[in-house]
Amino acid sequence: MKNTLILILILCSILSAHSQLRNNDVYKLTEMNESGIRDIIRIPDIEGYKTLKCDFHTHTVFSDGKVWPDVRVNEAWKEGLDAIAITDHIEYRPLKNTVKGDLNESFKIAKKRGDALGFIVIQGTEITRAKPIGHLNALFIADANPMDTKDPRGAIDIAIAQGAFIMWNHPGWPDNKSTLYPIHDSLINEKKIHGVEVFNHTTYYPVSFDWCKNRGLAFMGNSDIHELVKHDYGSDIAARPVTLVFATERSEKGIKEALFAKRTAACFNGQLAGKAEHLTELFKASLAIETKNAEKGIYEIANISDITYQILVNKQQYSLPAGKTRRITLPKEGKIKILNCFTGMDEHLEVDLPLL
Amino acid sequence: MKNTLILILILCSILSAHSQLRNNDVYKLTEMNESGIRDIIRIPDIEGYKTLKCDFHTHTVFSDGKVWPDVRVNEAWKEGLDAIAITDHIEYRPLKNTVKGDLNESFKIAKKRGDALGFIVIQGTEITRAKPIGHLNALFIADANPMDTKDPRGAIDIAIAQGAFIMWNHPGWPDNKSTLYPIHDSLINEKKIHGVEVFNHTTYYPVSFDWCKNRGLAFMGNSDIHELVKHDYGSDIAARPVTLVFATERSEKGIKEALFAKRTAACFNGQLAGKAEHLTELFKASLAIETKNAEKGIYEIANISDITYQILVNKQQYSLPAGKTRRITLPKEGKIKILNCFTGMDEHLEVDLPLL
Amino acid sequence: MKNTLILILILCSILSAHSQLRNNDVYKLTEMNESGIRDIIRIPDIEGYKTLKCDFHTHTVFSDGKVWPDVRVNEAWKEGLDAIAITDHIEYRPLKNTVKGDLNESFKIAKKRGDALGFIVIQGTEITRAKPIGHLNALFIADANPMDTKDPRGAIDIAIAQGAFIMWNHPGWPDNKSTLYPIHDSLINEKKIHGVEVFNHTTYYPVSFDWCKNRGLAFMGNSDIHELVKHDYGSDIAARPVTLVFATERSEKGIKEALFAKRTAACFNGQLAGKAEHLTELFKASLAIETKNAEKGIYEIANISDITYQILVNKQQYSLPAGKTRRITLPKEGKIKILNCFTGMDEHLEVDLPLL
Amino acid sequence: MKNTLILILILCSILSAHSQLRNNDVYKLTEMNESGIRDIIRIPDIEGYKTLKCDFHTHTVFSDGKVWPDVRVNEAWKEGLDAIAITDHIEYRPLKNTVKGDLNESFKIAKKRGDALGFIVIQGTEITRAKPIGHLNALFIADANPMDTKDPRGAIDIAIAQGAFIMWNHPGWPDNKSTLYPIHDSLINEKKIHGVEVFNHTTYYPVSFDWCKNRGLAFMGNSDIHELVKHDYGSDIAARPVTLVFATERSEKGIKEALFAKRTAACFNGQLAGKAEHLTELFKASLAIETKNAEKGIYEIANISDITYQILVNKQQYSLPAGKTRRITLPKEGKIKILNCFTGMDEHLEVDLPLL
Repeated sequence: MKNTLILILILCSILSAHSQLRNNDVYKLTEMNESGIRDIIRIPDIEGYKTLKCDFHTHTVFSDGKVWPDVRVNEAWKEGLDAIAITDHIEYRPLKNTVKGDLNESFKIAKKRGDALGFIVIQGTEITRAKPIGHLNALFIADANPMDTKDPRGAIDIAIAQGAFIMWNHPGWPDNKSTLYPIHDSLINEKKIHGVEVFNHTTYYPVSFDWCKNRGLAFMGNSDIHELVKHDYGSDIAARPVTLVFATERSEKGIKEALFAKRTAACFNGQLAGKAEHLTELFKASLAIETKNAEKGIYEIANISDITYQILVNKQQYSLPAGKTRRITLPKEGKIKILNCFTGMDEHLEVDLPLL
Repeated sequence: MKNTLILILILCSILSAHSQLRNNDVYKLTEMNESGIRDIIRIPDIEGYKTLKCDFHTHTVFSDGKVWPDVRVNEAWKEGLDAIAITDHIEYRPLKNTVKGDLNESFKIAKKRGDALGFIVIQGTEITRAKPIGHLNALFIADANPMDTKDPRGAIDIAIAQGAFIMWNHPGWPDNKSTLYPIHDSLINEKKIHGVEVFNHTTYYPVSFDWCKNRGLAFMGNSDIHELVKHDYGSDIAARPVTLVFATERSEKGIKEALFAKRTAACFNGQLAGKAEHLTELFKASLAIETKNAEKGIYEIANISDITYQILVNKQQYSLPAGKTRRITLPKEGKIKILNCFTGMDEHLEVDLPLL
Repeated sequence: MKNTLILILILCSILSAHSQLRNNDVYKLTEMNESGIRDIIRIPDIEGYKTLKCDFHTHTVFSDGKVWPDVRVNEAWKEGLDAIAITDHIEYRPLKNTVKGDLNESFKIAKKRGDALGFIVIQGTEITRAKPIGHLNALFIADANPMDTKDPRGAIDIAIAQGAFIMWNHPGWPDNKSTLYPIHDSLINEKKIHGVEVFNHTTYYPVSFDWCKNRGLAFMGNSDIHELVKHDYGSDIAARPVTLVFATERSEKGIKEALFAKRTAACFNGQLAGKAEHLTELFKASLAIETKNAEKGIYEIANISDITYQILVNKQQYSLPAGKTRRITLPKEGKIKILNCFTGMDEHLEVDLPLL
Repeated sequence: MKNTLILILILCSILSAHSQLRNNDVYKLTEMNESGIRDIIRIPDIEGYKTLKCDFHTHTVFSDGKVWPDVRVNEAWKEGLDAIAITDHIEYRPLKNTVKGDLNESFKIAKKRGDALGFIVIQGTEITRAKPIGHLNALFIADANPMDTKDPRGAIDIAIAQGAFIMWNHPGWPDNKSTLYPIHDSLINEKKIHGVEVFNHTTYYPVSFDWCKNRGLAFMGNSDIHELVKHDYGSDIAARPVTLVFATERSEKGIKEALFAKRTAACFNGQLAGKAEHLTELFKASLAIETKNAEKGIYEIANISDITYQILVNKQQYSLPAGKTRRITLPKEGKIKILNCFTGMDEHLEVDLPLL
């Protein structure tokens, strides 16, 4: 507030000469227009790849969401994401008597808005069945209409034929049991499930960290947003779940290649789940370290990212707060454990010392 | 962050005994659920009246808005308002080929959501014509469908017959000229315009402060929201424009009575426009003043409201920041000018000293 | 920021007529002067008592602190406290070759500053010995100089003779063992220890919650600040440890009476430790509850205090965030447990339902 | 808060195996220790130079300041600065009866603390006389004691002989007239004044922007802090005035070389005053620009710095908020004016389009 105050006071005489609309008829304040402003989420690129922030699970009024499709694009654009998928349910469309359109309509509307902004919108759909198979998102599809089939395997096969990446959604919903049923086992073996949501909305599924690790699935974290992102997650940067995609280029093509290559991590509320190699690089790229006293092992570690890391070293826990520097004494060798980085159900990321 | 950290560490052993869903299958965190949390806007009641925060101008997918009607209710509920009106355009419904329903449909949906929450939703509509008459909201109507008439005066008469309060919207839009045309003059004389938007979205119309003052119109401030409130106004409490209604009870009936009695003030981004008597009471009710030295005129003024007041006293400008106390020396008599409180186009609120 | 921006733009023309110092020579901005602004800590009064926020343990350059005594007063004033005690060590004064003055000097300087502000400053001192007796603060003393004795019991007796309240400081320091030694047992029995620090700086001592409960000691929480409060605790309201004093009047006399009556609670970082009767009243006074649906037990609970409460009800944990309202369903009878309110080492506050 | 909450809940079982001090005796929370954390001020380096944030004007209890000298170092370290000078008054030492020591004592204490942290502390002093000459800081001196002379020119000559950089302080104080008297004219000609404070504490001196420009003085901005920085400026990053030094290396030597080369800018509350060449580079280094539509001139401009820029383009004013991206349409050629960057008294920075 003060920033502006002092600034504007000095500007008074200057501005009075300018032609902004500030008369007795109307004051229209272009500099106040928040709609042209978007957040920056500071999560660094890693060696060889851009780190893209993506949400592969969103709904609109064309299924059981509460917003027009381009709001999903505007939200993601405004909150600093790089891409979203529109994934309205095939089988559950409670507003269909009022909101008309086929299974591709919401994507088309969102895509038009995305193109206007230069923002990546991926066509998807949610195959929505009861357990055991549960819900699965098909991403990078061309046409959702033929997937409205009786047998969910049939829908999956059509999606696969369209080149889709299949994500198994929220495995612990709605019964609070995260069970990898035979149907999933079989689909994974057939390479018809490629990733799994380890984070969904405000819930997560630790056992799925191990499925990713042991079965070669991509770690995914998504909002599954039906209402408004800011209402569900508040105003903190990086509160919304996203899938970090380590891509060779910022494009739909780049994202698709990275997803099939399983170069992803799930990020939710300052926690990360992913492969050790990716998380190690992300952790290190987040830090700028200055040696203050090599002999005594004193360092100042600047965390230039928006993710606060919680580290355990010498049996002491320390935070490395986002956007702050911590002065710390570290042993010359050994490991530090990163408590907010998960590489498996009972496994945290460990990074070798020295960090430099 | 620290608050929770220290708390939770102490709770670790305790909580492990509880039955929250925190196992390897699923972590579902009820305490994280932002959807059950709403803001408190600290704007005090005044003598004899409750101060209600209302937005009488909102849109949904049933005209050119971008959200399902109950989102408008959820937004207002979450952001701490007391009531909204749904005021979709009669004449401008660009999505009507996709979103089906008559002119009352959006209100019905919103009202159902409001009833579920115990939140006041007022039926309205926007009569949407070119200048000179421009746009007018009819509030507290029973049925919008018959207002789809050729002559706007006809629509107004039907609304009036239903007991409507008529608000003249954004008088300076779209030509950046705020002109009170003969049609408005006539409607005001006939008591068919009762209030005017002095603030609309991010624009305001100083000349309209004088219309309120001289023609007995209610001061109104509204968002005219089409997209998302949080996107247009950011996360600050009290950034969104609202009409403050000084009502005898928190009910639709109470609001209606207060509007026709012109007991309102417009509030936008920390600025207030209204009648001197209401703003004086609001200003005083916002402050808790402690005399530190009566002889020297030293006071500590706690501003317990969310509105930062800018005062001018002895040719010096001071802020009384929202939620803070200022120590200040005040003259024993005279006036202070409140620079963010407007009672007319070229007129700020003035309050007599001493304040106590 | 925006608040000010829009405001100031409108003020440009107006202000140019005023005589603030805003020319090419000098811009002196009285409204930017942060030094006259103090925080408001919103912790409510309870039935029959004012709730005063006090810090009974602070240091200056006259012992091993790092600031001139009036900085301690300015800090506490600015941060919204009601009173502090200056409690420089008797036995440990490492700067004494540079900073001259007897054992009362720091109090005198601070008191002069307090009187200028109208802020309560209490004379104290810290009797500073090795364990078992450890450190004890004598509060409300008249002269610290005679307490510079060989035998700590002698110092205590002199303080008691001056009417002092004796607080046992940080019982777990420096050996991380909180031991009530025979010397303490004896002093408590003789009514020569009246309170104990259950919170000190960033550490706390759960076992001492039970000592307060079982031995009739006052719960105390203090900063023991040597450097700067804002540096040690950051900028959050209510991060600094304070002793809440439930006093009949805001005066040194009122505080002293309340301390000897053991009407206190320790407050640190959103946690409270105290007697069930006081914490119950404080909890209830922090909440404004509206019944939304009596039959279904739906309420909206506004937490008007700056303390976020963590409650456990029906085996679910919820936060009641400071300054927000939560919509919640509560059982018609039974108890809720308040997880951030401690009444004993293994005991949380429990409050009966219904709350209204 | 939520970040930590969700994190810690998942950590509960894990942490219980660790040996942090969390038992009934004592909870000592290393991760809460704010004293090891320092801010990062995001002001970018420019081509060929590191941008160092320095405060060349500070006081301690050894003159009329209120803190022990190492607090000045701790403050600056914590707030993300790169260097400070200790500049206690020679002639005004109101606490000297209590605080003993010669004119170098405060520097020695601060320097010891700086060396322990690896933080640059520069020896300085303030030659403190009435107008016309006023106050001048001598920086990079070796011994302040001989400067306690009758004639201020004598003190300056002794400082110059020690290699000092001479800064003319707050030219408009205390009479609110910023006058360049003959004595200053003469000293500037003799190269015995090298820089001038264009910002001091919460005041600034527009006419001095022109002195810098026309007389080749370094632009300086300093706090002149006597009390606590956080109390005077609040908690915003970059609220404190600093002199930005464009140095070849982060060292006292590097700073001294840059000051004599006049490679500085003053920065206060989001405003910058300096040479056009430096400010242009700083502005451009603060921005990451992405072309969204070359033909239509649509760009997304990410401001990765902590300085919000106010730009004027096509007669419209826009903010480029710190840490946010703005989508904007820019003309293909022409200039934009940067309203918060001053290159002279009546002159704002202008930058050529296109920006890329």
